[in-house]
Amino acid sequence: MSSAVRGSSSPTTDLLDDYLALCKEACDGEIDRLYGDGDQTGGLRDLILDYPRRGGKALRPALGIAMCLGLGGHLDAILPTAATLELYHNAFLIHDDIEDESWWRRGKPTLHIDHGIPVAVNVGDAMLSLSLQPLLDNVERIGLGPALRILRAVSHMTRRTVEGQAIELDWVRSNTWTLTDADYLTMVELKTSWYSFITPLQVGAIAAGEGPDRRAPLETFGRHLGAAFQITDDLLNLRADPDEYGKEIGGDLWEGKRTLMLLHVMRCAEPAERERAAYILAKRRPTTNGEAGLVELLDTLTRRGELSASGRASVHSFLMSQHVSDPKTMDDIRWLYQLMCDVGSIAHARKVAGHHAREAAAILAADLDWLPPSHHRDALAGLVDYVHGRTR
Amino acid sequence: MSSAVRGSSSPTTDLLDDYLALCKEACDGEIDRLYGDGDQTGGLRDLILDYPRRGGKALRPALGIAMCLGLGGHLDAILPTAATLELYHNAFLIHDDIEDESWWRRGKPTLHIDHGIPVAVNVGDAMLSLSLQPLLDNVERIGLGPALRILRAVSHMTRRTVEGQAIELDWVRSNTWTLTDADYLTMVELKTSWYSFITPLQVGAIAAGEGPDRRAPLETFGRHLGAAFQITDDLLNLRADPDEYGKEIGGDLWEGKRTLMLLHVMRCAEPAERERAAYILAKRRPTTNGEAGLVELLDTLTRRGELSASGRASVHSFLMSQHVSDPKTMDDIRWLYQLMCDVGSIAHARKVAGHHAREAAAILAADLDWLPPSHHRDALAGLVDYVHGRTR
Repeated sequence: MSSAVRGSSSPTTDLLDDYLALCKEACDGEIDRLYGDGDQTGGLRDLILDYPRRGGKALRPALGIAMCLGLGGHLDAILPTAATLELYHNAFLIHDDIEDESWWRRGKPTLHIDHGIPVAVNVGDAMLSLSLQPLLDNVERIGLGPALRILRAVSHMTRRTVEGQAIELDWVRSNTWTLTDADYLTMVELKTSWYSFITPLQVGAIAAGEGPDRRAPLETFGRHLGAAFQITDDLLNLRADPDEYGKEIGGDLWEGKRTLMLLHVMRCAEPAERERAAYILAKRRPTTNGEAGLVELLDTLTRRGELSASGRASVHSFLMSQHVSDPKTMDDIRWLYQLMCDVGSIAHARKVAGHHAREAAAILAADLDWLPPSHHRDALAGLVDYVHGRTR
Repeated sequence: MSSAVRGSSSPTTDLLDDYLALCKEACDGEIDRLYGDGDQTGGLRDLILDYPRRGGKALRPALGIAMCLGLGGHLDAILPTAATLELYHNAFLIHDDIEDESWWRRGKPTLHIDHGIPVAVNVGDAMLSLSLQPLLDNVERIGLGPALRILRAVSHMTRRTVEGQAIELDWVRSNTWTLTDADYLTMVELKTSWYSFITPLQVGAIAAGEGPDRRAPLETFGRHLGAAFQITDDLLNLRADPDEYGKEIGGDLWEGKRTLMLLHVMRCAEPAERERAAYILAKRRPTTNGEAGLVELLDTLTRRGELSASGRASVHSFLMSQHVSDPKTMDDIRWLYQLMCDVGSIAHARKVAGHHAREAAAILAADLDWLPPSHHRDALAGLVDYVHGRTR
């Protein structure tokens, strides 16, 4: 890692980009060192390195590195743990993409679209499994006490993450819509904040030799950062440029994901619109295996007189019996998006994201005063802006 | 746990059944204590306990308990680790069932059939995540040294398991058939022996305070046990009573799983039969969403004159374009099974399983002489017979 990360300078966007880029470079190198040794069999090595090599900002390693170095710790003390958190993140993404039926990730088809669900499930498991060894090797690297505290923090983190994921999946499956912003924020804290913000910050402090009294303020700081980040991410999913964003656009609406915007719509739209929105959202996502194409083909055959109307009806009711409901259409998605704009849901979500970003900034200024001024502290301040600023 | 486990008696089948039942009872209680506290959200608790509560023999906990108690260790020293290994096993089963597209597990639909793939992926992840905490709590329970050695053993185990799974998935995906018995046994050692036999035995010895010199003989013992177990399991999959076996029958053939029997067929059948077998095995499994039913419905419509022959052909080629190939049929599966019988593949597999069971028994007798005579040692001897004896 170059002196630009170790040095100290003012927090401009360029410098933050440089900081992130250097952390990413260090983290990529460490991932290669830890997992690129080629002794995994069955093609696992390349599959494990697929998502990490697609890019991404290495936000989680940067948080851990900035906290550790900002507290006077050494890069060697945090780097294997930082790389491990990045591996966890990528494992969660692989399984998340299966769970959300996402088709696109960082500008390419998702792993399960490329290699099938069986391989993608196992590659995610492999990444979760491989992450334990570097954390055990911390015993020799940073001493027994800190190593065990990091292991406990990671154990807590993974538990929170799967709980948040379970809540979200449960809402979608049970078609639950009577949810408040507080419900959403609780879910986001579990699903996102722990593994993306709180734990990276905490393990950074532990690796620098800090005691347990840093845990609580970093938890609060990370919780607000996580809320601002996730709401912003959900807003980006609605409207960003796919080339820049790297995910499929509007995927959350196809999936029926409970975002702050959608919950706001379901609370604030007129009853008739709310009813139509609920009807659309209860529809399933079209399958990837060309189901829509089959329906189209049958329509054409009926028009040409090659398939009777009653035959067409039989096939249609067969398809319905298999899938319970019609799939969502592009028009459905456009209508939902317009409703969000009309009801003020997007403005509401932006406001909430702004609130949490300001809270995070205030906590950094007031409650993290034990983190001395440095380039690393500046990077954390820059990250507060970055996390929230992506949609302003 | 009652005195029947702690006591000593001759190794009859009844006593082994009692021993397994008591280990299972202790393990179930521990799983309830560790994971049944109800603080998991989103319905996770019941989903996590679903597979463990369906029964199963708790073979892995029994191996750990027998080794620990047989070496003079305490039940408290091994029980949380034994329960954790059982949780790992059930997590692997959940993800395995997704990867193998299995529909049936322990007499009920698989978790992903019951609750969908998204929920099943996350529940498996939750179980893998939750298993770290009890292993960290070992530090207070059995001391730092043994706790860290168990963590390292589990880290090694999960790595080997996902590698074995990757090899097997890779063979299916790449339609590889030029495989020897040695290739199969290497895969089985990684996929099955480590997590089902070697690691449970090793952690039992560690929990009893034994040093690293017990590692190597237990690895050899567990490797042979694992081979005998997996070959026997594959044989059972072909022909056992579903009520007793609890899995779908012939599922391995539908899946195209590389078993010792199928590899033997592909080496020893006449060229024409080998060619037909390869053709069948390259076909995909029918989808669960009623694809076969749709084809049947279209056939009926064509017979009734409600769908033209050319229309039927268009739909058929559409379905082909979506799925690349025809699905396997029940006749295909019956033909493969008959070929296995005719070529002697089943007899060959039985012979290999018997060889590994005898090797395991010989190692127990000669190389595990540091394990004194006891009810627990008898149970291990009984397990060697049990693992192999299920198909005799």
